[in-house]
Amino acid sequence: MSTTPIPLDSVGYVSPQKIAFETPIQFASGASLPRFDLIVETYGELNAAKSNAVLVCHALSGHHHVAGYYRDAPDPSRSEGWWENLIGPGRPLDTRKFFVIGLNNLGGCHGSTGPGTINPATGQPFGSDFPVVTVPDWVEAQRLLADHFGIDSFAAILGGSLGGMQALQWSILHPDRVRNVLAIAAAPKLSAENIGFNEVARQAIRTDPDFHDGHFYAHGVVPRRGLRLSRMLGHLTYLSDDLMGEKFGRLLKGEDYQFGFDAEFEVESYLRYQGDKFAGYFDANTYLLMTKALDYFDPAKDFGGDLTAAFANSTAKFFIAAFTSDWRFSPARSKEIVRSLLANRHDVSYAEIESVEGHDSFLMPIPQYHALLRATFEGIRV
Amino acid sequence: MSTTPIPLDSVGYVSPQKIAFETPIQFASGASLPRFDLIVETYGELNAAKSNAVLVCHALSGHHHVAGYYRDAPDPSRSEGWWENLIGPGRPLDTRKFFVIGLNNLGGCHGSTGPGTINPATGQPFGSDFPVVTVPDWVEAQRLLADHFGIDSFAAILGGSLGGMQALQWSILHPDRVRNVLAIAAAPKLSAENIGFNEVARQAIRTDPDFHDGHFYAHGVVPRRGLRLSRMLGHLTYLSDDLMGEKFGRLLKGEDYQFGFDAEFEVESYLRYQGDKFAGYFDANTYLLMTKALDYFDPAKDFGGDLTAAFANSTAKFFIAAFTSDWRFSPARSKEIVRSLLANRHDVSYAEIESVEGHDSFLMPIPQYHALLRATFEGIRV
Repeated sequence: MSTTPIPLDSVGYVSPQKIAFETPIQFASGASLPRFDLIVETYGELNAAKSNAVLVCHALSGHHHVAGYYRDAPDPSRSEGWWENLIGPGRPLDTRKFFVIGLNNLGGCHGSTGPGTINPATGQPFGSDFPVVTVPDWVEAQRLLADHFGIDSFAAILGGSLGGMQALQWSILHPDRVRNVLAIAAAPKLSAENIGFNEVARQAIRTDPDFHDGHFYAHGVVPRRGLRLSRMLGHLTYLSDDLMGEKFGRLLKGEDYQFGFDAEFEVESYLRYQGDKFAGYFDANTYLLMTKALDYFDPAKDFGGDLTAAFANSTAKFFIAAFTSDWRFSPARSKEIVRSLLANRHDVSYAEIESVEGHDSFLMPIPQYHALLRATFEGIRV
Repeated sequence: MSTTPIPLDSVGYVSPQKIAFETPIQFASGASLPRFDLIVETYGELNAAKSNAVLVCHALSGHHHVAGYYRDAPDPSRSEGWWENLIGPGRPLDTRKFFVIGLNNLGGCHGSTGPGTINPATGQPFGSDFPVVTVPDWVEAQRLLADHFGIDSFAAILGGSLGGMQALQWSILHPDRVRNVLAIAAAPKLSAENIGFNEVARQAIRTDPDFHDGHFYAHGVVPRRGLRLSRMLGHLTYLSDDLMGEKFGRLLKGEDYQFGFDAEFEVESYLRYQGDKFAGYFDANTYLLMTKALDYFDPAKDFGGDLTAAFANSTAKFFIAAFTSDWRFSPARSKEIVRSLLANRHDVSYAEIESVEGHDSFLMPIPQYHALLRATFEGIRV
């Protein structure tokens, strides 16, 4: 076990808590669940006025473990949350000021009710019978979570990518319950190409013979091949050509070409490793649901395709950021959001940040980016 | 059967011919074949001086049927070659002037010796025992083909993408045997991202349970799932986000979201259709070989990584073209080639053509592009 000390400006050791909601929830699809659980982590303390809460929404493969470390992990020093670099005492999202909530969304595979949960109707895991969930559905579950904590209004809701879409959706559905929206590396809706990449990933999973139409749990298998391909492809689209060039280029593992099909370029090894790792822990049905939520996200749809109309009642301050090397949700997509917000004369800041890390940039401690987040959070009155 | 007449400026009905080479061929890998066949088509007539021959090299999924129609096809009017719009009497590559040769490369699945050919050593199809072939290996087979026709020097060698790489390789390996090189939408070598996309496609095929380590022929199956995924992914990278936006956007097949996993966006249907079609006729081992040839292409490698040194002895005139919407082999990649040619003071023209069709642009009859090809071919003395 490593003895690396945990940094002093981390929130330190944390524990998740599971919150039971013994009330039905209705989804956009018409389906419903009679009850559900959300697994959450919180950092910092909720003030007496309950005015200092920040909700962090996760992206495709994220979860509730946003910051801090797990004392019981095999190697605690490597158990940090996925946005550890952002959150802690003295960090840009300062837990001395804010009460931060991370959750795993409905349909997830990290403890919230999802496809791996036992379906009371069958006594078996839901599998592919789990309802298709949408961003508005998640916002509804998050609203019930806010009620649970007695939070009338979030100081801020923050997310990157699919997480940013949830933050935007909050400002549309519950404008009175969020004072600041930080949507990073997001888009107002997916392009045909975006949907296409998701569809390839879904087909990889769904055509894996071990998928068993989504009920693989009963067969004691997981569609590992499909999940692995999905993640390999995902990684390619999250990174940038430039970063991959810097990181791998045409480096070979061995001395020269092997004229076979073992991994011989470093980039091949990297992708296989990432795919294998992911296939070892992520749920295939959750992956399918997350990609569908992305495809369906289109808040303008209920307003005749008019994004400006969608944001008409929003009252939050907006911080919109995008990264130059992100070709999955490029700066042009964030600017579409900004234009609609400006057309409503909403209070919006936009930052286009130089980076080489592609879509994954939103997770990186890029100095200019973190300085802007710090300034934004410092400017929020609680 | 359709009665659509064949255009007057087509080469008309054509027939392939199989040419047997009863001589061993040695590959870069060290492997060899004792003999091999190449399937070819020719259009126009070879002049007495044998100075008017143009070789057309194909890309990943191409073949020898470059132009013209097949009288015996189920629907002759839809049996045109893959570069029909370019080649014919009065077309940019004018068959009244030139003798045009199309071939299927070694390792292909359209009639040349490849993985589906019976391996004399086993009496079974080669399958994955077929040697890994490289661009220089293909050039060697094409050289033997030139000898077969008695062609000392090609008036031009032309190709797009992987085909353009073969044209470039000719100018390096046999500078005295090619007078004009037209390399379109090519690159001097693949980037890590390029290799990554190829690797995802390979893994999709190789992890399909029906692949049987490349010997699926004996099992009476083909790795249809893997091929289908490879082609879906390929299509996404050949097209551009803009074109897909224009063509599909977020159009739904039905009236509204279905909240399920059937194809519901038009782009999903399109990709599934393309994938299914491809999986019905293309050989999985050939796909693997073609992607490996792409990954290995790196003519500078034998010159200490110096592309300028690689082209030092080339004597051809070069026409290099790239397309603004091609993100697979972007104009920046073509400019790398141009810079190395200019550093050698070679005669080179470069065209960067506005298009929305992505990498596939090289197959499109874009007026500016075809006008440049026409002018280039008109300028060639035979």
